[in-house]
Parts: sequence; structure tokens; C-alpha cells
Amino acid sequence: MARIVMKFGGTSVGDIARIKNVALRVKAEVDRGNQVAVVVSAMSGVTNQLVAYCTEMATLHDAREYDAVVATGEQVTSGLLAIGLQELGIQARSWAGWQIPIISDDAHGKARIEDIKGDEIIKGMEQGHVAVVAGFQGVAPGNRVSTLGRGGSDTTAVALAAALKADRCDIYTDVDGVYTTDPRIVKAAKKLDKITYEEMLESASLGAKVLQTRSVEMAMKHHVRVQVLSSFSDAPGTLVCDEDEIVEKALVSGIAYSRDEAKVTLIGVQDQPGIAAAIFGPLADANINVDMIVQNTSHDGTTDMTFTTPRADLERALKVVKDNMKVPYKSIDTDKGVVKVSVIGVGMRSHAGVAQTMFKALAEKKINIHIISTSEIKVSVLISEEYTELALRALHTAYGLDAA
Amino acid sequence: MARIVMKFGGTSVGDIARIKNVALRVKAEVDRGNQVAVVVSAMSGVTNQLVAYCTEMATLHDAREYDAVVATGEQVTSGLLAIGLQELGIQARSWAGWQIPIISDDAHGKARIEDIKGDEIIKGMEQGHVAVVAGFQGVAPGNRVSTLGRGGSDTTAVALAAALKADRCDIYTDVDGVYTTDPRIVKAAKKLDKITYEEMLESASLGAKVLQTRSVEMAMKHHVRVQVLSSFSDAPGTLVCDEDEIVEKALVSGIAYSRDEAKVTLIGVQDQPGIAAAIFGPLADANINVDMIVQNTSHDGTTDMTFTTPRADLERALKVVKDNMKVPYKSIDTDKGVVKVSVIGVGMRSHAGVAQTMFKALAEKKINIHIISTSEIKVSVLISEEYTELALRALHTAYGLDAA
Repeated sequence: MARIVMKFGGTSVGDIARIKNVALRVKAEVDRGNQVAVVVSAMSGVTNQLVAYCTEMATLHDAREYDAVVATGEQVTSGLLAIGLQELGIQARSWAGWQIPIISDDAHGKARIEDIKGDEIIKGMEQGHVAVVAGFQGVAPGNRVSTLGRGGSDTTAVALAAALKADRCDIYTDVDGVYTTDPRIVKAAKKLDKITYEEMLESASLGAKVLQTRSVEMAMKHHVRVQVLSSFSDAPGTLVCDEDEIVEKALVSGIAYSRDEAKVTLIGVQDQPGIAAAIFGPLADANINVDMIVQNTSHDGTTDMTFTTPRADLERALKVVKDNMKVPYKSIDTDKGVVKVSVIGVGMRSHAGVAQTMFKALAEKKINIHIISTSEIKVSVLISEEYTELALRALHTAYGLDAA
Repeated sequence: MARIVMKFGGTSVGDIARIKNVALRVKAEVDRGNQVAVVVSAMSGVTNQLVAYCTEMATLHDAREYDAVVATGEQVTSGLLAIGLQELGIQARSWAGWQIPIISDDAHGKARIEDIKGDEIIKGMEQGHVAVVAGFQGVAPGNRVSTLGRGGSDTTAVALAAALKADRCDIYTDVDGVYTTDPRIVKAAKKLDKITYEEMLESASLGAKVLQTRSVEMAMKHHVRVQVLSSFSDAPGTLVCDEDEIVEKALVSGIAYSRDEAKVTLIGVQDQPGIAAAIFGPLADANINVDMIVQNTSHDGTTDMTFTTPRADLERALKVVKDNMKVPYKSIDTDKGVVKVSVIGVGMRSHAGVAQTMFKALAEKKINIHIISTSEIKVSVLISEEYTELALRALHTAYGLDAA
């Protein structure tokens, strides 16, 4: 007997027929003798509709009211699934965030879970009851409904699994696991059986959309074993777990890419101490995320400084730099046609030459690297967007990831 | 300065434009210097959709889960209206039933309000805040969401007005008040300025759909002055109030009708003590409502017994009577083509001859009366449905109700 939290996203509960299908999947888990809690998202399209209503009422709206409106989508699904489970003879009840309660901070619209009082749910599970929990929501100080931000239902599931001391958190989605790279681009991409939290975290923050970054952070912190699998097939998924659980560690487990990048180059900046602080301080104050940074060697007392920001923030970033730049510079160049490609693997820690394989593979395809950035378990390069597919396929082959 | 509860039904909040219109109406009341709380229904169509979802999941569904699902409609509207009010510069917040709390019993799907803790809302009102309350819902024992049944938002509004000691409860709807009779049938129908609780209660239970019976009962019990008015016009509505507030009491204030009637006649019942109990006991046990009853004088030791039930219950009523009838009888006759027409007025209490006017007016039009039933403030007759319009017009004229 295991204790399992199952999470179903919006597509998996997209209509009544699919919610009935989810009920059957939950029943199968119960029939295996497991204790089960379920976390559900809103039916697909519902959250967008509710968000649109709020925006139509007022462009700038009170985040507390937004939360009160938007959180209803998950409440509907949880009630409907509870009905569906009861119809299959399973004892079940729905739980809204405030009923458990899932206590969050008051950062409405992107609240963080602070505590989950899981006692009642555990008591129910021990008597064979299935708890159907509305994802994406909590209750903030002052008894107001909060939401956790997009993808928040994953976080609810992982946090609930931690609170219930669950053996596993199964995230059912519309893909059947985590792949070595995007299978829509690289036909030879393979599904991974296991991946470490660290790798998953890098993948998530580097553009892979399978799991929300915050949910992986939480899983890592609480050692929650997370399985990503498809609600439309019976194939086993990918387990996200501690490194110890993975016997054969690959040097590189996957290749991620993100098109959400823009490059800014300040040309001819007067080279003097403190120029980085002068440029990036105001950007940080304006809450603009700066990712990769490179500063060239100085010529004639001037240097070029290049950095990347999310594409949506480019215009704002330019304005901040121009308004605050106290150090003389010649001009600013921008480029929206770039993509960040990253190779990720915990095996890198103990192996030299991983980056070199990347540079060599890209050079062979005549792909120019704009910026390089590395961490303990990943190497990222910024390249021109037109080379995305070519680079992914070349790297997938170079690291020996192609399916046999 | 007055303290006012305003209630807007589903049509009044049917889309974003209409919710914005409601926000303007609320603002106008605030601008007049009044303290305001608002009760809202779900956007029209939403509740039906949510009910349909529950029914699609399972024909027989857990009423607690049904409530959790269906109550979300009002939560959406309350959040949206709060946003709309804030956009107009008014301090406002939404309140779900559990947040206030509106404490109900556990008769899920048709719960009764037991208590409303209005302290926080009153405190807010005194500081100029508008409370936007989700109608139709409460919180039942065990912290479960409950709903009050169809039309329950009227009840929420009246109960809230009682709890807040409001000076008036304005029910905005798609008609602009209470009329002497159905203006779609009788062109000469007039809008009433005032009507007593008792008359309104009789009207509601006799087929007029303007206010929910339970909300009128509650208004009468707590002396809440209720105004019915249109959210689409600026005309004054009809005030439902204590008799003392009405200076000129009309003999008859209105004429109601109900097509939801079916007539059952037991012919040749052996006349012996206890036959009424023998017939109506089993019907009561089966939860079938019996309205009008008439027993003819006995001939040759047998009598005819006639009664009415709601049309939807006719088949079930017949089965109950046939299965349980211990007293010998000859046959059963049924008639679905009947309508109940009622004249209502508190003035009747002190005046004789009111019924006679009715009988005479109907006789003049050669309309045959099947059954008569009277109370202190109403006279009802059952007639063939085909005469409905003719009877309404004749009675409207006979009681001097025609508009000048």
C-alpha cells in the first residue's frame, strides 16, 4: 500500500467525459490498495474566461478579487470529480483551499503556500476516502481566497504530497513524461525513466514546460518523488527524484531551449570599475530579469556589455538602461531573433569536456555562439533563432541521446 | 442617510456590460450618502450550466458536491462587481457565504439560513465600504458550502438586510414592480406602489413569480421593507411592507393565477368517517402537495371528493391514491386543463361581499367554477384553463383595478 497524490491538469479535465475518465484512473489507483488524494485544475478554457472577465471589468484590478473569481474554476472541477468518484462507489469529497486549509501568504495572484493542515485529509484517507482538492488556490490572511499563479496546481499537488507524507506525487498531463529534448523538433528524442530534481529544475527554468519551476523546487526541498505521466495513455512516465535513486547517471540528460530571449548590447561603454552595477542595478530595481551577461575585453578604454532579458521585457529594459545610464557609451544594439539552448546533466559535475562537446558540435554546423553561460549542471549558449532545430538535433546526437 | 441592501438577479448581471451598469446603480446609491451592501446572483445561464455538469456526472449526485459546484457562479459575479465598483472609485470587496459567514443548516441544495454574522460588514459600511455578497449560498455544519435553492438570492438579500438592520432591501429584477395582475394578459394592469407582506406572500404562493415565497416570509418575520424594481429603468418600484405603512388599503390589491394545477375527482366514495384522512394521509406521506379540497354532500351513502395537486405530481398522486385507497369508490377522474385564479387583498378581512363580486363577474362571462377555496385575505377558484384571460380581465374590471 502506498499513499499517492494524483494531479490532473486542465486538458485532462477538459470536459465531463474526461472528468469521468479521470475518475476511472483514480478508481484504478484505489483498487490497487493505495490511499489517494487528487488535485485538479480548472476545466481547460475556464481560467482564461474568468481572467478575461476580470480584465474586461477593469484593466488594473484588485488581485484579491481576481483571486476570488479565478479560483472558482478549480472548485467546480473538484466537486464534479467527487461526484464522479461517488458514482463509481468510491467515498470522496471535494476540498477548496480554505476548507483544508491551504494557508498562503497574501501575495494575491502569485501567492506562496505557507502551510497545509493535512490532518483531516489523512484521517479520511486512512478510512478509504479520496480527497479531491481544488488546485491553484489557498486562503490568505484575512480569510481571503488566494491563487498561486499559473501552473499553481502542480505546486498544490507537490505541497499536498509533502504535507500528507505521500510516497509519490503523480502529475498527469498531456505529455507522457520528460524527454531528452522536444520530440516535436527532434524525432530521436527519448522519454527519460528518471531525472533528478536539479536537472528538472534547470529544464523548467530553461524553457521546458512540463513542470512549473516552483513545484520542482518544492519537491526537491521536501524530497517528494514526482512522476510526470499522460492521462491519455497507460505508459509509465518519468520520475523526478533524488540523485541517489538514479543508478546510471547520464552525463547529459537532456537539451532544453527557450525562444523567450532578447539580447541587448551596449557598445563602447567606458571601462571603469562599477559599470556592471551601474547597468544592472536599475534593471533589478525595475524588476527586469537579466539572464546571461558577458563583458568583452577592453579595447582603448571601452568595452562591449551584452545581456539577455525575456523578450516581453525588452522595451522596458531599454528604457531603464537609457534613463539611468551614468557611464558614457556609444550605442545600444538589440536582437530579438535569438534562442537559448542548454545541455543539462548532473553527470557534468564529475566530467570535464562536456562544454567542449557542445561547442564542437555547433561549430561543425557553422552555428555562431553569441553568449555562453554555465552552471554546475548545465551549459547554455545563445544562438540565432533560425538555427534552433539544427542545433538541437546536432547536440542530441553529439551527447549520444538519440534513441536506438 | 439610509442603510440599503441592493439585490441584482441573473438577468441584471447577465454579462460584463450589465455588471458595469449595476456598478453605476450602486455608485448612485452611495453618492446619495447611503450605506450599501449588494447581493448578486450568478450571471444568467451560469447556474443552469453548472447544474447540467452535475447531472451529466451522475443523475443522483451528492447534494454537498452539487452545492460546492453550483455556488461558484455567485462568487464569480461578486468578485467582478467588486472590481467594477473599485474602478468607479468605490471601496468594495466581495464576500462568499463562508467568509461572512452566512450560517445555514445542512439541508444541502435547499438550505435555510440560520444566522448571519454581519459585524464585519457593518463595520465596513460605516467606513464607506460596499460589501458585495454572493447570494444563494451559505456555510453548513462541517464547513461545507450550501445553497439555498432556486431564487435563494432573494432570501440572502432579505436575511442580510435583517442582519444589517437595513432600512430597505431593494430587489432589482427584470420587471419594474408588482402589478395588479399579469400585464402580459391584462393591458389595464397597474403597478402597485405598496403591497403588504401577506398579500405578496399569497401572490407568490399563488403563482406570481416576482419574489420567492421564502424571502417574503423572512421579510415579514423581520419587518424588512422590500422594494421590487427594475434594473433596466429608473422608475420607482413596488414596496412590500407592513400593513401600517399603507394608508389607503385596497379591498383587492391584485389577481393572481397559476396554470400549474391538476384536478383529481374520486367519484362515488363510500361516505364514512375518516375518508379524508384515508385519502390525504398517504398523499402527505408521499410528499405530494394537495391544495384545494372539496367534498360534495352525500347521496345514497356515497360522495364525490375533489382535490388539486401540482401538475407535475399528478401521475404520482394517482398511483398513491389507487395503491392506498381502503375506502370503496367507483372511479377516478382527472383534469389537467384547469387554472387557479385568486383575488388577494388584506382589505377583505373587514369587508363582506368580496367573494360575491368574484362569483358574479365569472357568472356573467359564463365561466364555470370547479372548486372554491378561501383564506382571510384571498379567494381562489379553479376554472377551465381556456377561460384564464377572460376571467383575469373580468375580475380586474370588477374590482376596479383597471388603470384610468
